[in-house]
Amino acid sequence: MANDSQFVNQIADIESDFPQWYTDVVLKTKLVDYGPVKGTMVIRPYGYAIWENIQRELDRRFKETGHENAYFPLLIPMSFLSKEKEHVEGFAPEVAVVTHAGGEELAEPLVVRPTSETIFGNMYAKWIQSYRDLPVLMNQWANVMRWEKTTRPFLRTSEFLWQEGHTAHATEEEALEETIKMLGVYKEFAENCLAIPVITGKKTEKEKFAGAVATFGMEAMMHDGKSLQAGTSHYLGQNFAKAFDIKFLDKDGALKYAYTSSWGVSTRLIGALIMAHGDQRGLCLPPVVAPVQAVIVPIAAKKPGVMEKCAEVKALLEAAGIRVKLDNSDNSPGWKFNEWEMKGVPLRIELGPRDIEAGKALVFRRDRLEKGEVALEGIAQAVKDMLATVQKDMLEAARQRRDKRIVYATDMAGILKGVEGGNFVKAGWCGCRECEDKIKAETAATARVYAEGETAETCAVCGKKAEHVVIFARAY
Amino acid sequence: MANDSQFVNQIADIESDFPQWYTDVVLKTKLVDYGPVKGTMVIRPYGYAIWENIQRELDRRFKETGHENAYFPLLIPMSFLSKEKEHVEGFAPEVAVVTHAGGEELAEPLVVRPTSETIFGNMYAKWIQSYRDLPVLMNQWANVMRWEKTTRPFLRTSEFLWQEGHTAHATEEEALEETIKMLGVYKEFAENCLAIPVITGKKTEKEKFAGAVATFGMEAMMHDGKSLQAGTSHYLGQNFAKAFDIKFLDKDGALKYAYTSSWGVSTRLIGALIMAHGDQRGLCLPPVVAPVQAVIVPIAAKKPGVMEKCAEVKALLEAAGIRVKLDNSDNSPGWKFNEWEMKGVPLRIELGPRDIEAGKALVFRRDRLEKGEVALEGIAQAVKDMLATVQKDMLEAARQRRDKRIVYATDMAGILKGVEGGNFVKAGWCGCRECEDKIKAETAATARVYAEGETAETCAVCGKKAEHVVIFARAY
Repeated sequence: MANDSQFVNQIADIESDFPQWYTDVVLKTKLVDYGPVKGTMVIRPYGYAIWENIQRELDRRFKETGHENAYFPLLIPMSFLSKEKEHVEGFAPEVAVVTHAGGEELAEPLVVRPTSETIFGNMYAKWIQSYRDLPVLMNQWANVMRWEKTTRPFLRTSEFLWQEGHTAHATEEEALEETIKMLGVYKEFAENCLAIPVITGKKTEKEKFAGAVATFGMEAMMHDGKSLQAGTSHYLGQNFAKAFDIKFLDKDGALKYAYTSSWGVSTRLIGALIMAHGDQRGLCLPPVVAPVQAVIVPIAAKKPGVMEKCAEVKALLEAAGIRVKLDNSDNSPGWKFNEWEMKGVPLRIELGPRDIEAGKALVFRRDRLEKGEVALEGIAQAVKDMLATVQKDMLEAARQRRDKRIVYATDMAGILKGVEGGNFVKAGWCGCRECEDKIKAETAATARVYAEGETAETCAVCGKKAEHVVIFARAY
Repeated sequence: MANDSQFVNQIADIESDFPQWYTDVVLKTKLVDYGPVKGTMVIRPYGYAIWENIQRELDRRFKETGHENAYFPLLIPMSFLSKEKEHVEGFAPEVAVVTHAGGEELAEPLVVRPTSETIFGNMYAKWIQSYRDLPVLMNQWANVMRWEKTTRPFLRTSEFLWQEGHTAHATEEEALEETIKMLGVYKEFAENCLAIPVITGKKTEKEKFAGAVATFGMEAMMHDGKSLQAGTSHYLGQNFAKAFDIKFLDKDGALKYAYTSSWGVSTRLIGALIMAHGDQRGLCLPPVVAPVQAVIVPIAAKKPGVMEKCAEVKALLEAAGIRVKLDNSDNSPGWKFNEWEMKGVPLRIELGPRDIEAGKALVFRRDRLEKGEVALEGIAQAVKDMLATVQKDMLEAARQRRDKRIVYATDMAGILKGVEGGNFVKAGWCGCRECEDKIKAETAATARVYAEGETAETCAVCGKKAEHVVIFARAY
């Protein structure tokens, strides 16, 4: 299928030059453009519409699990960062700093938030007095900034959009439960909305969030077999509570530090969608988050009755809650087919005079590149059902692609061979930093997450007793 | 009603100390708190929920009028500001500037966007080539920053949330039509969602947006008779198109500059809600944007059947799409009445054993401080109808309060007397800057908008021929 059209050559070859394929796809489908400042992106309407769908789905889940949205300031006093030792070491090198404002130099420089644990901590200390004030379960949708040397739209940009949940609890158990619960919300969302199967698990000390006691992540496999960290949930213990003095009077009359958690996903998820489902024709979007779920392309549009019937079908689908577009531009049907395939629209409905006469339409499935017939009578329900099928099939197909590429290794050569072949590699690990560093140095793979519930005899590097089975992969 | 409760004294007197009343209300109802950096605010969940309702209502209207959302970078090169002469003069003094990032000093300082005409202009120049690319109709929901000397939560803070629409058109007529259309969208929204009557009209040269050809604003009267600029829509002509080189090949084969518009409303609208509808008991929120539309307060909650019936009614209201809260805390009914009145919940439903026996509930209207009976049978529809009535009545009440306080003046003494009495003052104006400045100097009132369609003989200051009737008021 990759070579059957004159249109295909607009996009670099997905197998031989995946990075260029990615750049071609994000720019040509108008998801995004480069901003004037190095490392920034402009999220164009087609890309932002995906983000709005992601937001809607996640926001509903956050609210259903008892969280409330709030908005905290963008600028954080530099001194706040320093209150948690690991946190400042992790983030200080990549912050953007406001030194002047209102025509004057500021007494204290302010950082543009790279993440907001510190400013939430500062306010929580003020608001939380008693066990009755707990738990505090908040989320914010916001922009954050981390100055990066090498950037790529959606995957790594100096500014990105995300949500960050910040919660405070009376006990360690509750805070840990929250951390794991939100990881579960992310996983369910990734699989059911993005159609991306993810592996969740705990991260190693080296890979954890700066300031966390433990970080749990979800990892998704991209087309090239590399991993993308698609979301993280951090158990912060009392680290930030102690740094910001978040104390409460407990039922037993004792003054105690709270336990906190934080968790986030970002516009990176759009990069995950592109790289998990895309093919040589371009994007392939799962219906739940696709800005356009079905596009109607009239065939022989000038023949009597064609445009009228197309408009009628459009109205029927809209009434059924389907996000539908009727392409009534002057371009040829072939041009439109290519355009909407590249943009990843899940279903294309072709309607010409003969179809109308026969009381049917042709429906093309972007995910399987298959065409079938659908009766015009009851077309809205049929399209709705097909969208649900596509959604399910895309997850299953992604799962099959991924599962074929999870391999085991028992030594360094095996890890190297595995990741060079574009696989996730499971291997035993003794738990020491030296072995973890050695794997990275020799294979460019990093420890993604622990493979939960799995055991191995020996560490693939040093041969000592294995403490964990770890999933190693090269990563975005 | 203002003195009948021991609770009332928590809030400063609304008539004698309106500024303190405002501060008390925003803090005690937990709409907002002060951020750690001077001039910043933390929007707490109760305040943010209002903003979410505002966003939902506006966003739907923007999309219905053909606009798409996008997201542009926060940081703008300092040099961009300078490309439009009036724009830089207006905004340079109040920008926050990033000078360092990633551990290094930047080659060019970057400003945190105070508004985004320049960066939209920069990208539009790249995207717009032909008349076929026009119009471009985009909006973004974003944070912006303007460093202010004196600040107040929601009304004037260094960072605030807003939406900014930016559009480009092939002709002056279309761009002007867009400018006026969006002003109309704002007015309809303000009246039907916020229940705030607004006066829309053109602004004077002195009061217009820095860089605009013409600014149109909507002005709302607050409790103290002062005006609050609740939204603006700017016709930018070719000013930004020339500064950023937004050119297109027109149908006639000529290369032309586009015409642009921009328009915005912000979290200021929450301030408007507070000050337009609030009373001695606190907030009074219109149902369309109230986070909680109805609160159920159980009476004699421990009596058998009471909590069960309350939960049942809650479920019925929820199923009808009403945002309802059941207050099952340990506090007394009196405490709860006070709390939810202060928080401005439109309807309070009281349910006790006798009510249940009689098959009814008591319903208290926050806007009129009136209590009535409602049958439990069909209560969801009854509450829905009451919410619609409250919404309508609140607009009408606000309109009546305002209309009584619009007066006419024919000389400076009249203007002074009018604004000191807490009125909007309509007066003839010759159109010269000197007379406008003199009014401000002597009365602290500014020209809000032209009173459209009205005429006067002479200027209230100089006595020369009046070119316009202007609404003068002291303003937030």
